[in-house]
Amino acid sequence: MLGAVQTKAAPRPRKGERTRESILRVAVDLASVEGLEGLTIGRLADELKMSKSGLFAHFGSKEDLQLATVAAAREIFADYVIRPALAGPAGVPRLWNLCDGWLRYAEGRVFKGGCFFTAASYEFDSRSGPVRESIAAAMKEWMKVLTRSVESAKKEKHLRADVDAEQFAFEVYSLAMGAHWSHQLLDDKKSRTRVRQSIAARIRAMATSECPSIKFPA
Amino acid sequence: MLGAVQTKAAPRPRKGERTRESILRVAVDLASVEGLEGLTIGRLADELKMSKSGLFAHFGSKEDLQLATVAAAREIFADYVIRPALAGPAGVPRLWNLCDGWLRYAEGRVFKGGCFFTAASYEFDSRSGPVRESIAAAMKEWMKVLTRSVESAKKEKHLRADVDAEQFAFEVYSLAMGAHWSHQLLDDKKSRTRVRQSIAARIRAMATSECPSIKFPA
Repeated sequence: MLGAVQTKAAPRPRKGERTRESILRVAVDLASVEGLEGLTIGRLADELKMSKSGLFAHFGSKEDLQLATVAAAREIFADYVIRPALAGPAGVPRLWNLCDGWLRYAEGRVFKGGCFFTAASYEFDSRSGPVRESIAAAMKEWMKVLTRSVESAKKEKHLRADVDAEQFAFEVYSLAMGAHWSHQLLDDKKSRTRVRQSIAARIRAMATSECPSIKFPA
Repeated sequence: MLGAVQTKAAPRPRKGERTRESILRVAVDLASVEGLEGLTIGRLADELKMSKSGLFAHFGSKEDLQLATVAAAREIFADYVIRPALAGPAGVPRLWNLCDGWLRYAEGRVFKGGCFFTAASYEFDSRSGPVRESIAAAMKEWMKVLTRSVESAKKEKHLRADVDAEQFAFEVYSLAMGAHWSHQLLDDKKSRTRVRQSIAARIRAMATSECPSIKFPA
């Protein structure tokens, strides 16, 4: 989800930035449930019990607020999913940790309404403008992270050399999206297991004899 | 997408019903682009250059309009995807025709904004109420149609007896959803081919030696 993932601890932010961060955390949560288009300065002011003018001091317009919310969601996603996986072992274990971290995130353990980006994708996919572009950029970055991790698993000789990394990233993405939908809309209790079985089966079908076995989380 | 798909031709509708049908065709198109939540009587009146009171005569409230739009989209989906597939040969050819018809529909050949139901699913998955329930019911029906067609392909001995039909329906659903997203948001030109390759690979992995070969559309 990030172009350059920072691994060093950032300096402690000043109070104004901390306030902005806390506001954006609520904005991302709200947008994950009600949609990014419904995220107006007025709606957010209601939710935070703040004045609209107080919020206008942080964000000059609805579009500024939407763009800042997308950027904040990217940061949270990187903290929750990407950085822990990159800090762990390379190859198939990292690929699996990216997938599983992402599923856990999409299962609503981070944002109230589940996957912020999947919801925003569908909301903005027939629109145009900077908000759509920022969502598409975040998604492309995440697909690149997944694709690179497949390529790296090939270099580690955990996956066969003829594996199409982009096709695999597309399949994994689709399965996670399907699980999100099945869980959120259809309330299918099996969806969490189903999607992990499907992804693990795809990995196994591409694995070499040198591939470490994946331990499935409960 | 339908509980009981009618195969007999319906009697020609009266003028009031035809007007209602034409209005709903526009409503479905509009909702596929701008979202179902944005579909108000006022917005639709603008689009149709009709008076709001004229529309109120057909739909008493925004919720009535949304529910009628979901029902209309179900009918169009059944006409475009389900009925032609059920009229063709059983087994894997029917399964493939359902998948391919659905992909063609989601690729924007029916509704302006692509797949009406996928967009509506994401819009309403964190909400509650009758509109969400009607979307979830349509989706469950469509999953049942897919699952039944896998079961029937097993009976025809085109697919192995140990195939998990629900798991397969989930995977196909996910892949089509991923292709929709990849095409609509990321403008990925390869997505149409990618999803057909993935689904065909899944079918091939489950096929028996008696399975007729699938002819891929261009």
